[in-house]
Amino acid sequence: MTRSLLPLAALLALGSPVMAQKEAAAPSPGQIVAEAPRDAWVDIAPEDLLVMTLAPATDGSARQVVIQLMPEPFSQGWVENIRTLARAEWYDGITINRVQDNYVVQWGDPNYDNPEAEGEAKPLPEGLRTMPESDYVNSARGAESDEDAIVLWHPKPALSDSYAAIATFSEGWPIGIEIAENTKVVRSFPVHCYGMVGVGRGYSPDTGSGAELYTVIGHAPRHLDRNIALVGRILKGMEHLSSLPRGSGALGFYTAEEAGKRMPIRSVRVASDLPAAQRPAFEYLSTEGETFARYAEARANRRDPFFIHAAGGADICNIPVPVRQMAD
Amino acid sequence: MTRSLLPLAALLALGSPVMAQKEAAAPSPGQIVAEAPRDAWVDIAPEDLLVMTLAPATDGSARQVVIQLMPEPFSQGWVENIRTLARAEWYDGITINRVQDNYVVQWGDPNYDNPEAEGEAKPLPEGLRTMPESDYVNSARGAESDEDAIVLWHPKPALSDSYAAIATFSEGWPIGIEIAENTKVVRSFPVHCYGMVGVGRGYSPDTGSGAELYTVIGHAPRHLDRNIALVGRILKGMEHLSSLPRGSGALGFYTAEEAGKRMPIRSVRVASDLPAAQRPAFEYLSTEGETFARYAEARANRRDPFFIHAAGGADICNIPVPVRQMAD
Repeated sequence: MTRSLLPLAALLALGSPVMAQKEAAAPSPGQIVAEAPRDAWVDIAPEDLLVMTLAPATDGSARQVVIQLMPEPFSQGWVENIRTLARAEWYDGITINRVQDNYVVQWGDPNYDNPEAEGEAKPLPEGLRTMPESDYVNSARGAESDEDAIVLWHPKPALSDSYAAIATFSEGWPIGIEIAENTKVVRSFPVHCYGMVGVGRGYSPDTGSGAELYTVIGHAPRHLDRNIALVGRILKGMEHLSSLPRGSGALGFYTAEEAGKRMPIRSVRVASDLPAAQRPAFEYLSTEGETFARYAEARANRRDPFFIHAAGGADICNIPVPVRQMAD
Repeated sequence: MTRSLLPLAALLALGSPVMAQKEAAAPSPGQIVAEAPRDAWVDIAPEDLLVMTLAPATDGSARQVVIQLMPEPFSQGWVENIRTLARAEWYDGITINRVQDNYVVQWGDPNYDNPEAEGEAKPLPEGLRTMPESDYVNSARGAESDEDAIVLWHPKPALSDSYAAIATFSEGWPIGIEIAENTKVVRSFPVHCYGMVGVGRGYSPDTGSGAELYTVIGHAPRHLDRNIALVGRILKGMEHLSSLPRGSGALGFYTAEEAGKRMPIRSVRVASDLPAAQRPAFEYLSTEGETFARYAEARANRRDPFFIHAAGGADICNIPVPVRQMAD
């Protein structure tokens, strides 16, 4: 994480929407990404990639979903649990049980906590950790005094936000920042954008194990931020999840009559455990560099020929971090 | 429209996120809506409802989509064109040609402006109007002077926003408000939330006729606000559109090889033209009343038992206007 000492006043000034003069023939966001220098891209470690294989489509074509797990300092207890579950092959044979329009797709053991279950819940492997609710945020980055400065990331860009003091990006992820009652404590947390992956849980104080996961398939449900652990995002194959038939039960769960709609998950593997030939490789556009700042500015001020009015701002979930699959 | 004289300073103070003290056993947003008094609900005129019948599902079940057309003062030229097209039965037999993940579903004549078209474009009916780009916004609501006040709706609630000076609701619709170079002119415009319906168009100065329509199936693409005409929203049957297979062509259009995925639209009718027995009836929760203000506040400060942290704010597209179908 890039950090710097930054006076609070300067931070809040940065919190205004990105503004820029309209320039003739300025590049579009897509062009900026296409022309990014090689060193603006960052490899994603194979240990941070999950390969989820769904049952094939009715025409026999394969359906694969690739998930990037979240790096430090966020949600590491749950991320480690997810690797443990994948390595125990616990996810193999579970199903997608919930598809709620404009909200989430959720997968897990169909017999877990389900009044319509037909069988016993699947036993969890050993070695899973239980995390406290305080781990939903990353906190305690304090300054020596609140007279002169607070310790913070130096956000570039910093966006105004309806849910956090500011929203920004760090190491490829969309992040909210909250300044606590005094300026000595700053809390940061990943935010619920489209395609983010989180950990299903019961009522507080349950925080979930990672056996039950969901992804966002609609408008960013940012009210879930700080209420639940976010552990990653979908890099590839999102359309296999977002286009599933919606469930007609409460909260979009499939009812017992709709059991046939529950899509089976054949396997989930950590990419680093796969043979090299089957290992997908992805990279993201560094959110710390000049190219990303230009891309974010161009997302907030669209100059593509289609546009007649530049918004002059954008919300964090409307600036998706560019990701690409590397050729074999 | 409820309007009032409101000093600019007061307006900007209202622009802060809704804040409220956490109260024990406070009702959830859903409870507030369920307990709304009868007179908090507003009938939608049958003239403002479109009934779109899609081809039946593979199991033979009917697929119907109900769209509410936008009332004055927004986009009325296009709305009138859409009624003309529906009454000419022009939409009957067109198809859904584009499904772009996290963006839009778009329907129209598959042979219109399509390099892969197999036939001639379908001739449009007579009587369609062409609107100027200035009709994307509703403007020129001026005050006598900018010393004391500006003429504005009295927004309740008023939300901070990344795209407009403020965001609010008016007569059941999510609205952005822009204050021009001087405070004498205020412009308002409908915003691109999930399920909103807009008019496809070519490059400027084309503004589209209403023959080509789309709906939002992902995170709110607010950069489209003020760049395109919004004409309505989906009230029912959204899941028939959002769960369609994504197109693999540019911008999510179905390629010639995927022509079989183009869902046929059997018919589109103005509800007031249907026999009374086939006419659906809907109502929305008045956005001007006290119940809606409480609902919006509760969306921004979730106190349902699941939540451990209230956000203290919400973006306009995360406060969907409650709509319900009336019993026959």
